[in-house]
Amino acid sequence: MPPQKPLSIALIGVGGVGTAFLSQLAHLQSHLRAKNKTDIRLVLIRRSNAQILESSWRGLDIGTAVKQLEDQRSSGGKLLGFEETCVHLATAPGQVVLVDCTSDPQIAGAYPGVLKKGISIVTPNKKAFSSSFSDWQEIFSIAANGPNAGEREKGHGFIFHESTVGAGLPVLSTLTELIETGDEVTKIEGVFSGTMSFLFNSFNPVAGGGGSFSAEVGKAKELGYTEPDPRDDLNGLDVARKLTILARLTGLPIESPTSFAVQSLIPKELESCASADEFMEKLGEFDSRMDDLKASATASGKVIRFVGSIDVGKGEVKVGLEEFEKSHPIAALKGSDNIINFYTKRYGSNPLIIQGAGAGAEVTAMGVTGDLLRVIRLLK
Amino acid sequence: MPPQKPLSIALIGVGGVGTAFLSQLAHLQSHLRAKNKTDIRLVLIRRSNAQILESSWRGLDIGTAVKQLEDQRSSGGKLLGFEETCVHLATAPGQVVLVDCTSDPQIAGAYPGVLKKGISIVTPNKKAFSSSFSDWQEIFSIAANGPNAGEREKGHGFIFHESTVGAGLPVLSTLTELIETGDEVTKIEGVFSGTMSFLFNSFNPVAGGGGSFSAEVGKAKELGYTEPDPRDDLNGLDVARKLTILARLTGLPIESPTSFAVQSLIPKELESCASADEFMEKLGEFDSRMDDLKASATASGKVIRFVGSIDVGKGEVKVGLEEFEKSHPIAALKGSDNIINFYTKRYGSNPLIIQGAGAGAEVTAMGVTGDLLRVIRLLK
Repeated sequence: MPPQKPLSIALIGVGGVGTAFLSQLAHLQSHLRAKNKTDIRLVLIRRSNAQILESSWRGLDIGTAVKQLEDQRSSGGKLLGFEETCVHLATAPGQVVLVDCTSDPQIAGAYPGVLKKGISIVTPNKKAFSSSFSDWQEIFSIAANGPNAGEREKGHGFIFHESTVGAGLPVLSTLTELIETGDEVTKIEGVFSGTMSFLFNSFNPVAGGGGSFSAEVGKAKELGYTEPDPRDDLNGLDVARKLTILARLTGLPIESPTSFAVQSLIPKELESCASADEFMEKLGEFDSRMDDLKASATASGKVIRFVGSIDVGKGEVKVGLEEFEKSHPIAALKGSDNIINFYTKRYGSNPLIIQGAGAGAEVTAMGVTGDLLRVIRLLK
Repeated sequence: MPPQKPLSIALIGVGGVGTAFLSQLAHLQSHLRAKNKTDIRLVLIRRSNAQILESSWRGLDIGTAVKQLEDQRSSGGKLLGFEETCVHLATAPGQVVLVDCTSDPQIAGAYPGVLKKGISIVTPNKKAFSSSFSDWQEIFSIAANGPNAGEREKGHGFIFHESTVGAGLPVLSTLTELIETGDEVTKIEGVFSGTMSFLFNSFNPVAGGGGSFSAEVGKAKELGYTEPDPRDDLNGLDVARKLTILARLTGLPIESPTSFAVQSLIPKELESCASADEFMEKLGEFDSRMDDLKASATASGKVIRFVGSIDVGKGEVKVGLEEFEKSHPIAALKGSDNIINFYTKRYGSNPLIIQGAGAGAEVTAMGVTGDLLRVIRLLK
């Protein structure tokens, strides 16, 4: 039997996704150890106000790591800076993978330096991939799996971010395979937000009916389907970030998620609301606008959905409301599911479709764990 | 720049899929050469009655390889045996990948020996994976990516077969990732045959109508959607083979594709027909049976579809006709598309769905090329 190869995992962010990732990591650790393959060790766990760096590199107990971090926090003390922490991490024996389960733009900003240290990155954090195009270019010019050859030979790390679009659904891996095997992707269209999916499946169901738009937003908020401030969903920026990532993967040099047409569902008159509460209180005054859109779609036998689309040939990216025939897979979506349609030369008139839950801690963590498996295979 | 790593490709079978694969291989070759990465060389092209083994290992011109093979055939001569050819292949510099684009059970039977020689295999040939369970176990006990550790260290090859289910759709890779990341797959259900999809979408459309069953079979045959002998589709064995593969991947020890309930759509009375023509002539006499099934489904607002399903917990595999609500994604399928629903603990009540063309030379070859990319990454 060959000796087990040590692989050090550094986790930042222990909210819902980070915690779900730890439980999947524990499963993977015992699975790989039983087969005498990679020896996974959790060497860092960090949140905004505390961290444990296990600098003997033997690894923390994954099952109790969050509890240990809680105790650490209550003991106080100054937090080591993230960059300095990475300098330590780079001295671990064997390979190191940083798992960024935050949505922190500052951590994202540090990726180029992390990759140059030979540390690989897997993350559901959209910030690094959906901000300025120069950030994207820098990351992939450095990463060992970027389009430039030879970076691995320089000792750089790999980077994967499947969960930045559609959570654990195989969206980025499928798009990448279509492109790598020489297919021509002509159009991508879909529902990329669990919140928007739930809202429009309730507001304008195929079977008819549905409450007022403000009532549905209120219901979605109560059920936990929206961000604490629903305006963070309704402004369309989350969808725009996902479209930015997909469009860049098809080769389009999208400057930023605000450099194309994004329809906000926040009425202009409410843009200056001071609080989420004030916004929710006043949203009902504008229900007639959404009712009109629904009525107009109904008149032509259609329903409205909040979608994103990329016309690759024209280089056009759009985010906003569109009407769909009731028999269209986008109209027939259920609950808070996402759906992504890839139209390609090879697949012809019927797209390749990926559909399912596109949000939630467990499925998001699954995308991260899947990326970790990809890195493990590449690091052999 | 690091030196290019040579990778020798040996293709058997130059029908529709083999030819489409060659064109994708040409694309991949120039892509990888341009980046100074892997240097792909086509060193063998073989059909049942001729082959060219380019034993200087510099590689054939991919664009004219089929033409060269045609010329070879007309020149006659005795064909070197497959096993003997593999002995030669194993002496190529660098790694070798066998691309089996036949549906030949004899080639499939040779896989264990090929893998032991260190040659990796990528294939859409279902035979090796859907025949006896002991064949399956033997292959994966030898393959470097099987569940046993250490086989790579013995110099064994890798094996991938994405295209054996749903052609180029990411079906096996998605199922594998669900399992590897620790999800619990509870049920798999779907339409796994482009022929059956087309037949029932035409015979029993959601919108109502549709011709008689025998007329629809005739139409499908004319349009090239069926095998030359439509009984090869209607007996359900093709679907049963795919279900066998999926069920085995979930861990069920399925003995063979005939060891579970498979509904054949060939009327008992016509099982003894001597020819496809005789069968097609007489099929209309049994149309009332299918009409009755359609009427009964219609009465409860449903449609009938030919599906396969695996209840993982109960260890039950079934292939045959089922009724579905008109709003169900399986009912709403279009054309000859496949749809695969993965029900898992993590995804909850709404399944993870993969949908799109599940047959055709181009998309089948795409799955093979995608597998080749997987092998290239692992061979680094």
